[in-house]
Amino acid sequence: MGRSSPVRVSPFLSAEDKERERAQKKEAVLREAARLFCEQGYSETQMSDVASQLGVSKPTIYYYFKNKEDVLVECFEVGFNLIEAALRKVDKTAKNGADRLRNVLLAYAELMTQDFGKCTVRVSTAGLSEEGRARVDIHRRRFDSRIRDLVADAVKDGSIGKCDPKIATFTILGSLNWIGRWHSAEGPLKPAQLARVIVDQAFAGLDPRTPL
Amino acid sequence: MGRSSPVRVSPFLSAEDKERERAQKKEAVLREAARLFCEQGYSETQMSDVASQLGVSKPTIYYYFKNKEDVLVECFEVGFNLIEAALRKVDKTAKNGADRLRNVLLAYAELMTQDFGKCTVRVSTAGLSEEGRARVDIHRRRFDSRIRDLVADAVKDGSIGKCDPKIATFTILGSLNWIGRWHSAEGPLKPAQLARVIVDQAFAGLDPRTPL
Repeated sequence: MGRSSPVRVSPFLSAEDKERERAQKKEAVLREAARLFCEQGYSETQMSDVASQLGVSKPTIYYYFKNKEDVLVECFEVGFNLIEAALRKVDKTAKNGADRLRNVLLAYAELMTQDFGKCTVRVSTAGLSEEGRARVDIHRRRFDSRIRDLVADAVKDGSIGKCDPKIATFTILGSLNWIGRWHSAEGPLKPAQLARVIVDQAFAGLDPRTPL
Repeated sequence: MGRSSPVRVSPFLSAEDKERERAQKKEAVLREAARLFCEQGYSETQMSDVASQLGVSKPTIYYYFKNKEDVLVECFEVGFNLIEAALRKVDKTAKNGADRLRNVLLAYAELMTQDFGKCTVRVSTAGLSEEGRARVDIHRRRFDSRIRDLVADAVKDGSIGKCDPKIATFTILGSLNWIGRWHSAEGPLKPAQLARVIVDQAFAGLDPRTPL
C-alpha cells in the first residue's frame, strides 16, 4: 500500500465542536440549577452553590448566563421546550380529540416528575423582572392555549363532554402541575404509571361508573 | 328619679379590649402581608412595604411578629384554620360520602380565591427555616389526610368510583390549589360559581356523559 497522509487531529476545536461543547456546558448548569431551585428554593440558591456542585468557579457560570434570573428563565424555557416537543409529537392518527388530548396530558404529567418540569411550578415568577416574566409568560400562555384548543376540539367531536374549555384546561393542568409540587422520586409508581392514573382520573372523574 | 352614679368611661382599655385590639392589629398585618406576598412574591416583599401600606412603622410590626418568616407562617396558619373551619362545618346530614367530600371541596375551592388561601399555594416554603416549614407542614399533612379519609369513605360507601385515595386526593387538590395560582378577582365567575364548575368537573370527569 502506498503512503497515506496521516489523519490530522487538531488540538483546536472546530466551530461545530465548540458550539456543541458550549451547549453541553450550559445544559449542565441548567440541570444543576433546576435541581437546586426545586429542592431548596430559588431565593435560597446562590450561583456559587451551582458552581461548586459542578466543580467550576462562579465566573465560569457568568460566562454562559447574564445572572441568576437568566438561569431561572432558561430553566423554564427548557421545561416548556420539552412540553412543546411533546405537543408536536401528538399522534396525528389519534382516533379522536379526546385521544389527542390524553396523549399530550400523559407526556406533560411525566415531565412534571422531572426537575425542569417541577421548576415551572415550584418557583414563583412573582419576583422576576418584567422582561424575565414576559419570557416565561409567552410559553405558559402558548401552552395553556394549545391545551384549550385540544379540549375545544374534543368537545366539538363529542369525544369529551360539554364543558368550558378554559376552566376545564385550568382544572386538568392544575392536577398535573400539582405533581411537580408533591412528586418524589422515591414514590412507589414510575412516572409513566403515575401519569396514567392521574390522567385516567381526569377523564373518568370520581363518580361511580354505574350511577347510584 | 334618684341620683344615679354616672357611667364611668375609663380611658384605659380593659384586658379584654386590649386582647381584641391586639388580635385586630395582627390580623390587619397578616391580611396586608398575604396580599403583598401573593401579588409580588415573598422574597420581594419587605416588612417595610407592609408597614407603609398600614401607615405604621416597621418596629410596630415587629412588636407583633418575630420576623418576616413568622408573618408568613401565620398567614399560612390563618389559611389552614379557615380550611379546617370549613372541614368542621361538613354537613353531618350529607346523604353519602361523595356529598360530604363535595361540600368540603366547594368550601376549599372558594378559599383558594382569597389571599390567605392563595398564599398557601403561591409562596414556596422551600426557603423557610426547619421550624417554620414544620409549622406549615403539620397543617398541610392534617388537611391532606382528612381529604384522603373522606375519599376513602366515599369509595367504601360506593358513592364515588374505586380509586387510590392518596393519588385521587392529590389530583383533586391539585385542581383546586391551582385556582390560587390563576384566579383573578376580575374573572367573570363569582367564587362560589367557579368552585361549583371545578368541583363538578372533578366528579364528572371529561368523558362524555353517554359513552361513545
